[in-house]
Amino acid sequence: MPDLPALPPGSVIGIVGGGQLGRMLALAAGRLGFDVAILEPEPDSPAARVAAHVIVGAYDDPAALKALAALAQVVTYEFENVPAGAVAQLQAMGVTVAPGPQALAAAQDRFAEKTFLNANGAPTVAFAAADTSDEAVEAVARIGAPALMKTRREGYDGKGQRWVETAAAAARVFAELGSVPVIVEAPADFARELSVIAARGRDGATAVYPLAENHHENGILRRSLAPARATPALSDQAERIAARVLQGLDYVGVIGIELFELRDGTLLVNEFAPRVHNTGHWTQDGCEVDQFEQHIRAVAGWPLGPTAAIARVEMLNLLGEEANAWVRLAHEPETRIHLYGKREAKPGRKMGHINKVKPL
Amino acid sequence: MPDLPALPPGSVIGIVGGGQLGRMLALAAGRLGFDVAILEPEPDSPAARVAAHVIVGAYDDPAALKALAALAQVVTYEFENVPAGAVAQLQAMGVTVAPGPQALAAAQDRFAEKTFLNANGAPTVAFAAADTSDEAVEAVARIGAPALMKTRREGYDGKGQRWVETAAAAARVFAELGSVPVIVEAPADFARELSVIAARGRDGATAVYPLAENHHENGILRRSLAPARATPALSDQAERIAARVLQGLDYVGVIGIELFELRDGTLLVNEFAPRVHNTGHWTQDGCEVDQFEQHIRAVAGWPLGPTAAIARVEMLNLLGEEANAWVRLAHEPETRIHLYGKREAKPGRKMGHINKVKPL
Repeated sequence: MPDLPALPPGSVIGIVGGGQLGRMLALAAGRLGFDVAILEPEPDSPAARVAAHVIVGAYDDPAALKALAALAQVVTYEFENVPAGAVAQLQAMGVTVAPGPQALAAAQDRFAEKTFLNANGAPTVAFAAADTSDEAVEAVARIGAPALMKTRREGYDGKGQRWVETAAAAARVFAELGSVPVIVEAPADFARELSVIAARGRDGATAVYPLAENHHENGILRRSLAPARATPALSDQAERIAARVLQGLDYVGVIGIELFELRDGTLLVNEFAPRVHNTGHWTQDGCEVDQFEQHIRAVAGWPLGPTAAIARVEMLNLLGEEANAWVRLAHEPETRIHLYGKREAKPGRKMGHINKVKPL
Repeated sequence: MPDLPALPPGSVIGIVGGGQLGRMLALAAGRLGFDVAILEPEPDSPAARVAAHVIVGAYDDPAALKALAALAQVVTYEFENVPAGAVAQLQAMGVTVAPGPQALAAAQDRFAEKTFLNANGAPTVAFAAADTSDEAVEAVARIGAPALMKTRREGYDGKGQRWVETAAAAARVFAELGSVPVIVEAPADFARELSVIAARGRDGATAVYPLAENHHENGILRRSLAPARATPALSDQAERIAARVLQGLDYVGVIGIELFELRDGTLLVNEFAPRVHNTGHWTQDGCEVDQFEQHIRAVAGWPLGPTAAIARVEMLNLLGEEANAWVRLAHEPETRIHLYGKREAKPGRKMGHINKVKPL
């Protein structure tokens, strides 16, 4: 990958996935003079409507991937469940995929992810894998109840996970989760949920954004406050973790790393997403170069941009019908509006977000 | 026009013209959740590649305008020479065009423009119209040589205008300009060239950006410095001029007003453009809400956004091959890069711009 020259403006950047993250990546790519090609099974997707090229097809459809490879000089993605086979097909056709398959593999399997993290000096809660009901009972006994049981694969926004209140309940919860391979995790007695957004360029340079403090409701991100109140020691910890993860994965692009801050000030990694991240949306109005442009710069082989905060931001997701308040929001002088162009405001669906900005 | 309700996200905004201004308008519209339809005779235009809909056709082609009217809830434009007939056709099909025909008519004829300005309390240099060679000689005699002779219509970036050094030369210059109707203008003995970018919403509210100081080379904008060094009295003058022009035209959208600052601190209006303006590009990285989003808000009937400066900016146009320096520019931490996706770097062609930002 380091051999590929930096892509000149006018090159085509392929993006797998046509949702809001793809849309905001496409808008950032457009600002830098790139063209974008979106691969997405749904016609009329949010990202497709701001892209030069659209391929409507399944993420692993060979014809669709061939069409994408014919257009794009580099391919990236907006979600971590891109099929490994799709990446292999693109690479076989000579297309660079960034972030690479190593990051995807780790992000797609919660057990591989935590194993990788610990092996690279990024601490997590205690965890154990289980493939069968008996193993699940044994894992909960080992980790101690209450524990969190999660499917190893899939699941997002709190889906595919349940609390196990007692070791005796482990078999029932294992069955409720579909009797698929799971990971059992010790609970984190955290004081705050934080996240660090970071990037690594094709030249190995890294750039880290200030920490964000995140608040979830029903498993869905509700708001982020950034830059989060943090001691230099806490920021240093986060930067060290980010650097280790990025280097351990030989990463190219932006990564979102979710953290637990324990009551003693220690940071544990909850999970990472090999992509731009909802808790990084504040950077659009709060940082010198935002996470979307940063990701495009990284995958295009450009130098990374600066990441310092230029404002204090409260980012609020607009879920479902909340986005209908756009007139009221547009009247607020401190509010920057970002809407995704989704056609239907289903309950809980991320329709947009706002960044409420204040001077630093 | 005040009867049209504010357009909800997901509506289609039509833009006549597919160049860089259309592109940056489309990117801003995308951020607010709008879809964009571009009408442009050139295929593969910069704006078309970030738009949901593209109509390739002449600006006054009835079939193309019908297609645009079928898609768009409101139509705006990126250049002032939209044919009046095209606007009339769109309006006859029930489509709102903003800014309206009154602004276009004034902007398309330098004599009508200056007449309007003076009638609305916005001072200009002395001027006189001439339709014939004899009238041109007489006009120069009246205004006094040296004077500037300009075609009343067309012409931009210094094209379509010449200096007349003596009254005797007026007939020759008139012929050189094509023996078309002209305007003769007294020279402005200015200390600085400034501009004010302002907006008016559908509700009549106005918003004015801080002044920019502009430097031209060979008739083409080279750089803008903003916010310009200005006394409160100077800023007040500019705001009063902007308010008079916007109200006089019953304007909806963003306008760019070029000013001469005389040595005694008086401001004269050089000309205005009924659209987003090159001297307003600094607002992308220097103001709370930039001129592109502001224009989209205005034409969509949304409340205007705040216009205060958040940084000091030096905007530099990248002309022709200067845009090839993108790698070097991407290494500069203070530099925000905006490239237009134009395929060919002809000499003098605006390929992009950079905003060099500093704290206020």
